Amino acid sequence: MVSAPPKPRIPSGQAASSRERSLVPVGMATILPHAAKQVRRLEGELLAHINCWGYDEIILPTFEYLDVLAPGLEPELIEQCYQFVDRTTGRTLLLRPDATAQIARTVAMGLTGATLPLRLSYRTSVFRYEREHAGRGREIFQVGAELIGLDDVTSDSEVIGVMIECLHRVGLQSFKVSLGHVGYIKGLLMRSGLSAQGQKLAEQAAARKDLPRLEEVLASERISKTAARAIREAPELYGQEEVLARGRVLADGDPSLAAPLERLGQVYRLLCAAGHRDSLLLDLGEFRGFDYYDGIVFDVFAEGVGAELGGGGRYDHLIGRFGRPLPSTGFGLDVDRLFRSVDFSDERSVSARVDYLVAAPSRATRLLTEVAAQLRRTGSRVVQQTMKGNDATLISVAVAAGSAQQAAVVVVVGASGIDHDDVLVVESLSAQMPGRRSGRMSPPSKKMALADLVAAARRSRRQGKERL
Amino acid sequence: MVSAPPKPRIPSGQAASSRERSLVPVGMATILPHAAKQVRRLEGELLAHINCWGYDEIILPTFEYLDVLAPGLEPELIEQCYQFVDRTTGRTLLLRPDATAQIARTVAMGLTGATLPLRLSYRTSVFRYEREHAGRGREIFQVGAELIGLDDVTSDSEVIGVMIECLHRVGLQSFKVSLGHVGYIKGLLMRSGLSAQGQKLAEQAAARKDLPRLEEVLASERISKTAARAIREAPELYGQEEVLARGRVLADGDPSLAAPLERLGQVYRLLCAAGHRDSLLLDLGEFRGFDYYDGIVFDVFAEGVGAELGGGGRYDHLIGRFGRPLPSTGFGLDVDRLFRSVDFSDERSVSARVDYLVAAPSRATRLLTEVAAQLRRTGSRVVQQTMKGNDATLISVAVAAGSAQQAAVVVVVGASGIDHDDVLVVESLSAQMPGRRSGRMSPPSKKMALADLVAAARRSRRQGKERL
Repeated sequence: MVSAPPKPRIPSGQAASSRERSLVPVGMATILPHAAKQVRRLEGELLAHINCWGYDEIILPTFEYLDVLAPGLEPELIEQCYQFVDRTTGRTLLLRPDATAQIARTVAMGLTGATLPLRLSYRTSVFRYEREHAGRGREIFQVGAELIGLDDVTSDSEVIGVMIECLHRVGLQSFKVSLGHVGYIKGLLMRSGLSAQGQKLAEQAAARKDLPRLEEVLASERISKTAARAIREAPELYGQEEVLARGRVLADGDPSLAAPLERLGQVYRLLCAAGHRDSLLLDLGEFRGFDYYDGIVFDVFAEGVGAELGGGGRYDHLIGRFGRPLPSTGFGLDVDRLFRSVDFSDERSVSARVDYLVAAPSRATRLLTEVAAQLRRTGSRVVQQTMKGNDATLISVAVAAGSAQQAAVVVVVGASGIDHDDVLVVESLSAQMPGRRSGRMSPPSKKMALADLVAAARRSRRQGKERL
Repeated sequence: MVSAPPKPRIPSGQAASSRERSLVPVGMATILPHAAKQVRRLEGELLAHINCWGYDEIILPTFEYLDVLAPGLEPELIEQCYQFVDRTTGRTLLLRPDATAQIARTVAMGLTGATLPLRLSYRTSVFRYEREHAGRGREIFQVGAELIGLDDVTSDSEVIGVMIECLHRVGLQSFKVSLGHVGYIKGLLMRSGLSAQGQKLAEQAAARKDLPRLEEVLASERISKTAARAIREAPELYGQEEVLARGRVLADGDPSLAAPLERLGQVYRLLCAAGHRDSLLLDLGEFRGFDYYDGIVFDVFAEGVGAELGGGGRYDHLIGRFGRPLPSTGFGLDVDRLFRSVDFSDERSVSARVDYLVAAPSRATRLLTEVAAQLRRTGSRVVQQTMKGNDATLISVAVAAGSAQQAAVVVVVGASGIDHDDVLVVESLSAQMPGRRSGRMSPPSKKMALADLVAAARRSRRQGKERL
């Protein structure tokens, strides 16, 4: 058996420095432009890949009535919710604490006419009170998918396969998906003769792999030594196929344990056949925090991240709590943690923030607008700005502005002595642009026909697209 | 002077039918897949265009401390906020009621090191209590942009130009941007000798173009007939250039009125030079609901929509309320109202929901996964599903599933007597696909080598891309 992947915390330097947390509630993040661009790219790539599998995005309300959503929420989760009273109706509202429960509510109560199976995806925030210093945000950005209306190994393996492919797609390195079945440990506990309370406590300890605590729970009630030994061993059963064989030994022919093992084995083998063996880790102690899971469950961990990046599983009875029993499975990913785990270093070095800064004295504002519009029509990213000061300083002020805006090229229009059809061009940041030769710090400006500049911009965009 | 564009309400049938509102608080919308796809496309197109002008997206927290954000909010808006007490700190939190105030707070307190001018964009929800039957959501989806650190006509016209281009880009037909300057009507009121309270009441009446109410306010205090006449006339001054001339007559040489008119004229002429004349309507009574606007202001109206789709203006003193005086201007668009105003009919008719439904009996799940993966690698949208039932019904069950999932092509793998390298193909929905001949309702299946199917999928994707 291989050991579980290491999960140390690493300082998330880049992420921390581009997020500002003062004056806003702890755990509520303002994501500044550079990071926001990467977060949005991440979300977009995840959803695009999920979309390839036939999942359609749904947009859910940020708050709901507590009484309506409560059947889908654990009591512990309700306690973690932000609640407030609706002035209009007097009813209690809560900020969405979980996307899966909200989708279950919607499918049961709102999408009753929809054809099954339903494949739904979402990008959203969920909101939870967290213990201070829990290292987790209170507003958690999630992307996920739910496959509703099927109960077979194909759908179990589908959602896990989609998730694994998503993680590869966004460039996450060396992650593991620990894969289990809640029925196995539940079966062991039920068979042991533990009280209902004892079973619950043991489940929690096993889920956290807290063996001393598990020992304590087992010692507090009188159960057989064989049963206790099996329960004690389960959380340590993680690895590849051999885990299933050992699990079968502990099951000792009990069909209520054999069935979950058989299902787990089938899903595992399907995922291996799809090429995902290296990403998988069977874990007979796997047991997610949500009580609604009742079949295959899974978690994602990446090297260097101290908490799971996401996970999911089968929740056949959740939608039924809202009055429409439907088998379902799904996954969710924590976009913020994923953002901290993915290496964006490639992308950062290659591009200026904007392609052109177009500058003009204020008397030439009209010309400025016109030139910038022409460049924008080529698909370039263009900032336009009128410059204060006199004609003598115009170019140097424009170059300074271009440098501050991280523009690859500075274009000056309306300078005195320059024809309306001509512009002055300074490739101030050429050194940072791919495929251009590095230039001096303040290269001289070059007079150019506007038409030629626009043609060059069009060419450069076309080449940029071909490079992709 | 042309008349103001008509603004009747039309029933938003398509939007209403694809939104489900029961059991969730009135005004909190669940946006179902078909509509969600269009809403996301709309958001994406708006942000992509704003991005071309050099604006960077920022992501802001959904709730904040009331005491921190309050300096940027009108008392009336604070009353419309969703507030609740933070269990962790005991401080009052509020759901973001306005994106501009939150960005102002962030720029003043968090982005103190950033280079000016700053161009920021956002997509977000804002939350407000609305009077019942106000016909407005309580969760309002917005996309917008702020240009911070410049006070000149170029920046005034820039944000309006970006907004107008955004509206054209998403295909909005026949809209008008009413353009004014709050300084003009404020100047008229100040000069009139009305009390501060009277000025405020008159502003509100003028903003709503509620002439009887305005009359009432003017009659309640003793002011000169000339002053009253000018105030009474201002809200009716809308149209093109001639409005400025008439405004100058009413200003009667008063520099505090001439300056706003001059600025307004410059911005108007710049926008006309950029080709936006047909979208503009000068309006000397224009006066947005937010007290923080203090210069050029504007609103967007579209034919057939009873409320503004968005708007914005200059708010030079807002950021200063958070301790860092910076001139600024910006706009915001209401994504939901825009969604109801844009015609998506073109896009709806041309595509199946998914390209392929791949079906197999459950014994062939592994092959199913493999074939679906190969098709997905061509960039196609592929749903995979194992079929219940016996071999005799396999194809008809698969075709029914394909039709339910609106798949263009149904692929059956693992049917008995069919080689592993072959598949059965049924173009069940070929009639709905562009560029294909319409077929019978249940055309017969066709045996095909898997490799040929994948090659055809790749060709079809390439052609699809070229068509775009």
